[in-house]
Amino acid sequence: MTHTTTLIRNGRIITASDDYVADVLLQDGKVHTIGKGIEVGPDVRVVDASGLYVLPGGVDTHVHLENVIGPTITTDTFASGTKAAAFGGTTTIVDFALQTELDSPLGAIARAQRSAESQVNVDYSLHVIIKRVDEQVLRDVRHAMHFEGVTSFKMFMAYPGVMMADDASIFRMLRQVGADGGMVALHAENGTVIDLLIKEALEAGHTSPRYHALTRPSLMEGEATHRGIRLAELAQAPIYFVHVSSNDALKHIVSARAEGIPVFAETCPHYLLFDDSVYDNDDFETAKYVMTPPLRKPDDQKHLWRALRYDDLQVIATDHCPFCMKEGHLGLRSSKLRGTKNFAEIPNGAPGIETRLVSLFDIGVMQGKLSLNRFVELTSTTPAKLFGLFPKKGTVAVGSDADIVLFNPNVSQTIHAKHLHSNCDHTLLEGRSLQGRVEKVFLRGNLIVDGEHWHGREGMGQFVKRGEVRAF
Amino acid sequence: MTHTTTLIRNGRIITASDDYVADVLLQDGKVHTIGKGIEVGPDVRVVDASGLYVLPGGVDTHVHLENVIGPTITTDTFASGTKAAAFGGTTTIVDFALQTELDSPLGAIARAQRSAESQVNVDYSLHVIIKRVDEQVLRDVRHAMHFEGVTSFKMFMAYPGVMMADDASIFRMLRQVGADGGMVALHAENGTVIDLLIKEALEAGHTSPRYHALTRPSLMEGEATHRGIRLAELAQAPIYFVHVSSNDALKHIVSARAEGIPVFAETCPHYLLFDDSVYDNDDFETAKYVMTPPLRKPDDQKHLWRALRYDDLQVIATDHCPFCMKEGHLGLRSSKLRGTKNFAEIPNGAPGIETRLVSLFDIGVMQGKLSLNRFVELTSTTPAKLFGLFPKKGTVAVGSDADIVLFNPNVSQTIHAKHLHSNCDHTLLEGRSLQGRVEKVFLRGNLIVDGEHWHGREGMGQFVKRGEVRAF
Amino acid sequence: MTHTTTLIRNGRIITASDDYVADVLLQDGKVHTIGKGIEVGPDVRVVDASGLYVLPGGVDTHVHLENVIGPTITTDTFASGTKAAAFGGTTTIVDFALQTELDSPLGAIARAQRSAESQVNVDYSLHVIIKRVDEQVLRDVRHAMHFEGVTSFKMFMAYPGVMMADDASIFRMLRQVGADGGMVALHAENGTVIDLLIKEALEAGHTSPRYHALTRPSLMEGEATHRGIRLAELAQAPIYFVHVSSNDALKHIVSARAEGIPVFAETCPHYLLFDDSVYDNDDFETAKYVMTPPLRKPDDQKHLWRALRYDDLQVIATDHCPFCMKEGHLGLRSSKLRGTKNFAEIPNGAPGIETRLVSLFDIGVMQGKLSLNRFVELTSTTPAKLFGLFPKKGTVAVGSDADIVLFNPNVSQTIHAKHLHSNCDHTLLEGRSLQGRVEKVFLRGNLIVDGEHWHGREGMGQFVKRGEVRAF
Amino acid sequence: MTHTTTLIRNGRIITASDDYVADVLLQDGKVHTIGKGIEVGPDVRVVDASGLYVLPGGVDTHVHLENVIGPTITTDTFASGTKAAAFGGTTTIVDFALQTELDSPLGAIARAQRSAESQVNVDYSLHVIIKRVDEQVLRDVRHAMHFEGVTSFKMFMAYPGVMMADDASIFRMLRQVGADGGMVALHAENGTVIDLLIKEALEAGHTSPRYHALTRPSLMEGEATHRGIRLAELAQAPIYFVHVSSNDALKHIVSARAEGIPVFAETCPHYLLFDDSVYDNDDFETAKYVMTPPLRKPDDQKHLWRALRYDDLQVIATDHCPFCMKEGHLGLRSSKLRGTKNFAEIPNGAPGIETRLVSLFDIGVMQGKLSLNRFVELTSTTPAKLFGLFPKKGTVAVGSDADIVLFNPNVSQTIHAKHLHSNCDHTLLEGRSLQGRVEKVFLRGNLIVDGEHWHGREGMGQFVKRGEVRAF
Repeated sequence: MTHTTTLIRNGRIITASDDYVADVLLQDGKVHTIGKGIEVGPDVRVVDASGLYVLPGGVDTHVHLENVIGPTITTDTFASGTKAAAFGGTTTIVDFALQTELDSPLGAIARAQRSAESQVNVDYSLHVIIKRVDEQVLRDVRHAMHFEGVTSFKMFMAYPGVMMADDASIFRMLRQVGADGGMVALHAENGTVIDLLIKEALEAGHTSPRYHALTRPSLMEGEATHRGIRLAELAQAPIYFVHVSSNDALKHIVSARAEGIPVFAETCPHYLLFDDSVYDNDDFETAKYVMTPPLRKPDDQKHLWRALRYDDLQVIATDHCPFCMKEGHLGLRSSKLRGTKNFAEIPNGAPGIETRLVSLFDIGVMQGKLSLNRFVELTSTTPAKLFGLFPKKGTVAVGSDADIVLFNPNVSQTIHAKHLHSNCDHTLLEGRSLQGRVEKVFLRGNLIVDGEHWHGREGMGQFVKRGEVRAF
Repeated sequence: MTHTTTLIRNGRIITASDDYVADVLLQDGKVHTIGKGIEVGPDVRVVDASGLYVLPGGVDTHVHLENVIGPTITTDTFASGTKAAAFGGTTTIVDFALQTELDSPLGAIARAQRSAESQVNVDYSLHVIIKRVDEQVLRDVRHAMHFEGVTSFKMFMAYPGVMMADDASIFRMLRQVGADGGMVALHAENGTVIDLLIKEALEAGHTSPRYHALTRPSLMEGEATHRGIRLAELAQAPIYFVHVSSNDALKHIVSARAEGIPVFAETCPHYLLFDDSVYDNDDFETAKYVMTPPLRKPDDQKHLWRALRYDDLQVIATDHCPFCMKEGHLGLRSSKLRGTKNFAEIPNGAPGIETRLVSLFDIGVMQGKLSLNRFVELTSTTPAKLFGLFPKKGTVAVGSDADIVLFNPNVSQTIHAKHLHSNCDHTLLEGRSLQGRVEKVFLRGNLIVDGEHWHGREGMGQFVKRGEVRAF
Repeated sequence: MTHTTTLIRNGRIITASDDYVADVLLQDGKVHTIGKGIEVGPDVRVVDASGLYVLPGGVDTHVHLENVIGPTITTDTFASGTKAAAFGGTTTIVDFALQTELDSPLGAIARAQRSAESQVNVDYSLHVIIKRVDEQVLRDVRHAMHFEGVTSFKMFMAYPGVMMADDASIFRMLRQVGADGGMVALHAENGTVIDLLIKEALEAGHTSPRYHALTRPSLMEGEATHRGIRLAELAQAPIYFVHVSSNDALKHIVSARAEGIPVFAETCPHYLLFDDSVYDNDDFETAKYVMTPPLRKPDDQKHLWRALRYDDLQVIATDHCPFCMKEGHLGLRSSKLRGTKNFAEIPNGAPGIETRLVSLFDIGVMQGKLSLNRFVELTSTTPAKLFGLFPKKGTVAVGSDADIVLFNPNVSQTIHAKHLHSNCDHTLLEGRSLQGRVEKVFLRGNLIVDGEHWHGREGMGQFVKRGEVRAF
Repeated sequence: MTHTTTLIRNGRIITASDDYVADVLLQDGKVHTIGKGIEVGPDVRVVDASGLYVLPGGVDTHVHLENVIGPTITTDTFASGTKAAAFGGTTTIVDFALQTELDSPLGAIARAQRSAESQVNVDYSLHVIIKRVDEQVLRDVRHAMHFEGVTSFKMFMAYPGVMMADDASIFRMLRQVGADGGMVALHAENGTVIDLLIKEALEAGHTSPRYHALTRPSLMEGEATHRGIRLAELAQAPIYFVHVSSNDALKHIVSARAEGIPVFAETCPHYLLFDDSVYDNDDFETAKYVMTPPLRKPDDQKHLWRALRYDDLQVIATDHCPFCMKEGHLGLRSSKLRGTKNFAEIPNGAPGIETRLVSLFDIGVMQGKLSLNRFVELTSTTPAKLFGLFPKKGTVAVGSDADIVLFNPNVSQTIHAKHLHSNCDHTLLEGRSLQGRVEKVFLRGNLIVDGEHWHGREGMGQFVKRGEVRAF
């Protein structure tokens, strides 16, 4: 059974702009018909969605599966991570292919595809991380855009000596990729200053996880964000900021957009769910909050919510970057324990791929901070548009892929790591009760999640060739 | 034939967020089914929409039909004005009911409905203009919201002694209407200063139409806009600014939204199409550009376009307020000629109800300033949402009213007043060639416009009871 | 002995920009010579100022002495108020002449001069309060500027029906006075909204003093401030805002100056000394904090200090407007007791004329918020420049009036109303210990204050004809 | 004759805040007495200054004399440059000591002092240029501050590989120097991007001088300025920006000050006198406008003037960095001719040390853009305060150094390079008629300039040990 014809009856369909009750017929992997009282034959599976929301499958454009980052590796494989994504209502991810010294951007894409293809459970694409820019790299980037369907590239202003590209390199990429209709995504933190602060903290004997936060001040996120904007302005190119955490960064995005500079940005659920009060101790347990950027102040959250509402932030992605708190099956390579003696060696990142939709529904929609339309727009439609996946992905519309989530707003659940599907041994939401539940998930018409049951199949996920940015 | 079942085959359906090719089945006045290759019987009218856009009917929330304004009356009746609207692709209008000394807000609504009901060609509602606020008025306003489906009210900061309400009255209305889920729309210009400037201009012997513009400086639009925002902020209520023309006003809207104050605003096509260079003469012909606010600078236009793109302006409405250049069938009451000796007696306003969609398509979409989605959002979806008409109006979705426009992007037309359907004897676009044409218009499933042919019927338009603001 | 020659030896002379130790010779009412080791004959009084600051006499441009305000009168006469001023180190005041229905601006000036001349102890001038603008008033205003040396005028946006002028009147005044080189000072609060809030509070039975503050929200100060700025911008005139209390107002001043609009403003010591936590009770004692605008938040104070430091506020004046807490010698007319049953009948205002310099020295200079130069600039030099008193007043320079304060920074004092010289029966600073003390005060070379001793003489103060604004 | 006693009679004394007519007695190198009708014996030189301004000697905190910059050397020696300074009314300069690979900051100071001491004609100090920061450098910097009287340090964000320091190094310097009461001055341009643009321009065959301007966009000055501000904010230190040329940079300074961040900045006369229209050709003559940053737009000038007036810019210094247009006595090392084939090899800089006061008087004071007080504050008082020279330098006050300029506002002069005293063979002002003339200059009481006559002596200039920043 590769594709079934399915009729989803009587659900409340939510898109980025619409909200209505109707039946949806899925056929040949696509949304075939939407209507009132659609009649079907006995061979068609009929699912009653009364009382449920019919949402487009989530699109998570910031995940790290099997990412080798220096001496570490994220704990989720393409298999485990995408299964978790699916259970969380996400049917498309965009992961990273890392340009190494050994291969080119094109090689990085091929390598990541080889890893993914046999095990990936949802559809996927890749951003290529570009560390070094030269003529050959720029040619490869252009090739990747035009022939491989890889239309976005990530660069770092942080991590000097490891990931950091200089401003001229970022500018060159912005200029070429922007002209070609693609997008450069930027990790904006001032790497050299942060590295100095880390070095000084360690020299002062400050080794506990809290110093991760104290050595990454939001001012340095703000500085780099402004710098990125000006580089994009000079390059006459759009730009996308990953994981915006602070108003010090956000305010530059807001004012750039008010000047008509095409700046786009995401935040992540953890910046909305938690604040920096978690760092007020020297316990190693705090290592689970060691992600980059770190958690910020309640006042920053207030600004993030404002921006989500007024479209100054356009995307909520997870930055799912899982490392175990204990020593897991991959040993210390995938464990926060690497940094028990030195916060700077704690692998950065937190899990979140499975809880994105339900946590945002609970703290966003239920609390009146986001409308249902906006919830869908932020988690599915706009990421799909910005990264060239739309209208194949990101909406419930005739002709689009039948990636559908049936979401029950009327039940609550309590989150426990042991019930989640990631390889990660913890969740930041442990024990938290959240309103809403993903009931069923269809990937191109295939029912892959049904309550607690998994009907997917490793390798059924497809690599999606992407098109140009659709920004406005 | 009140309702026909119609199948619109193979059009490109554009909503505020979607864009896809499918068939649309209209039945019982609603969109019944959207799908690929819908099969219908021989009794169903089939319209081939290949190569055409299938748009939701336009929603124009700022029109003046049969409006008595002091000693003048706008030249279009409900009949003529709504026929023009329909030919222009607009299937819902919101007109004004003016509270007079003689009747209450409720009386004003009833009076306007009586005028409209026998002659109106498209669906309609009314904003009530509130000039004076007291306890009884506030009770009527609440009644109108809860029982009459009239959920928006307009107030003026201009025209002292005629329309102007003082700040305390505006504040009271904002506070009550906002709490009740409705919207106050504000005409923001500083009336007392403008009246002084007019008086001084006339005393100085400056009587030609250009002085209309010179006595209404954008700084005084900006001042009043800021004042309205602060009143709304104090009242903890949303606010809507009509006919924003200048960056002096717009900048306050932009910064209020950046602070999280729910401010909404419209601009009008004439502010995007023309600038104040038209006033550089003393000809009376210039009287056709005597609208309020007057046309502004090219730099203001640049800011308006930026704001339309980035959602700092949410609506494009016409402020269709037609007066003849000659002495028409209503005599001087409806004619600009009233002001040949005194610019202050020229009735303010310009026609535009029929040319809204096509002019914006030409200068917005065709020139890359607006995406198709955004074009629909600004002219139909958001006005419907802000004024409580959605999802009945404002989208092409199953269950919504079958108000559909088939729009041909591939042909051009030249605008002439004699071909338009308004009673007004001129158009600001005379002789201008525009890309795009409204081919067919359906009102609740009824084909009312078919090329140059009129299939509508006076009185078929319905009064729409409106609900609460859907702002985000 | 009208004028003595005096040598002030060895003091530390502080002006708006200089800071040095030297001798100052006062002769014929002027500063005659400044130098090192000046030799004088035995007939010259020599005062040793070692360890003391030699400051220019304070200039307080916002005081209310003998002001009849509706049914009330401020409790200080010109005699008592200016004696208090002198003991506080202030040698020039600018009071108000109120245009009534009965007389013209010129009559108001003459009337105030008649009251003052026999009793005033320091030099003085007058701002005329303009409530109503017509052609005759504008002629009088011009006459007052050119022939009477009265170059500033105050208008109100608050107190409808009592003091409030409409926007057109304010605009006319700004335009004429600005063109003539003078200054309009504005009380910026939105009067109609505040009056509504007061009426509603009273209707709700809220009568205690705290409701004075609750019915005058800073948003309405901000609104009016912005409005005044735009009126001034349109009039191409400078403008001066009295008693800025909140960041909601200040932020508009800051951004106007950043745009090059000549906006000037004062704040008052009480806004820096106290915050709105004093209102957290229903005691009538709180009536002493009933001044307009009311005290604001600690965050507002932070912004005021910032602005004082960076020249976004240019003046610290007292708004000395004294009313007794008990029933004093003028009975209820001068007493806060008028409002025991109704906060709206509490006369607005607080004393402060005698404590200005010492309180600012303590909380400003001693706490590192203001340099000594800036302290002098804010309390003497800039008010003198802005209101046409410079260089006669406002500095210690050869040729300037010998208005000199010897200030001891090394002693502290405890403030008690009974030791102050105002008729007011209380001080907001009761029992507060402050660093610094005015030791001696010279008015045009005459020693009028010597420690606790008074050597002045009623009527020795002179009316100062003022010149144009010196703004930059 | 080392020190003469001189009486300057009857001049109009202008300081940063005062303006009055008096006599000034100079004795023992200091201002001894200021007064009316000072009597002196026959051995005192009496200079009649009737009709002249008596100004404090100019302080120019940005000059390059004998600076070796890579393979080039500025064309003025300490002798020629300071003689030119003196003729222009500048009696104190702050030049640069460049840390090389061979010596430390302290060595750089000693080396510059050795060059200067035998030939310098006015008083001087040095900023040390810090290219590389390590523990030893930081110790030297502290030593220089506390023992050498060198309290300011310059760093570059431009010129990678030559001068550029990384952000962490700038941050470390800001933090230490700020805590110690000194100042870091920053050259703010994004070096890596500019170098890329230069490389690309040359690769494209664009070699003429105009490409100097085209490859240094103001956006990259703005970016770096913002970055510097954020580094200073994080370091809790004041910061000073040299040669601000554009509103893209200035706007960040304005908003930082509005937030209370102690940011200070200079602009230079050439940014006020000329705009980028000079680059509209491919002539090599244009090489004389090759300075960094390049000239900007007329709109930038408008913003610079606004900022000078409202104290958002505090200093006007020359950035006197002279190179000959022809091959002078130092050959190609000092000549713009180095870059005939390649704009990137044209030595950057323009002369200006002698024309600063007169050009600003003409275009600033005479045109009503700056008051006399502000003119003095910008060119003498504030630079002296910011760089620890006040009150020794920067004012006309008893006890200050008798550095006095007698300035005649009533005569005009025409500028010709051949009449100037720099070794540079041209001036940007060639043939320009300017109002105002420096008549006489006193350095510590010595008359060194008298009309066209030179009375100074090489080596009479003294190294001034400086103190802490006096910022507010």
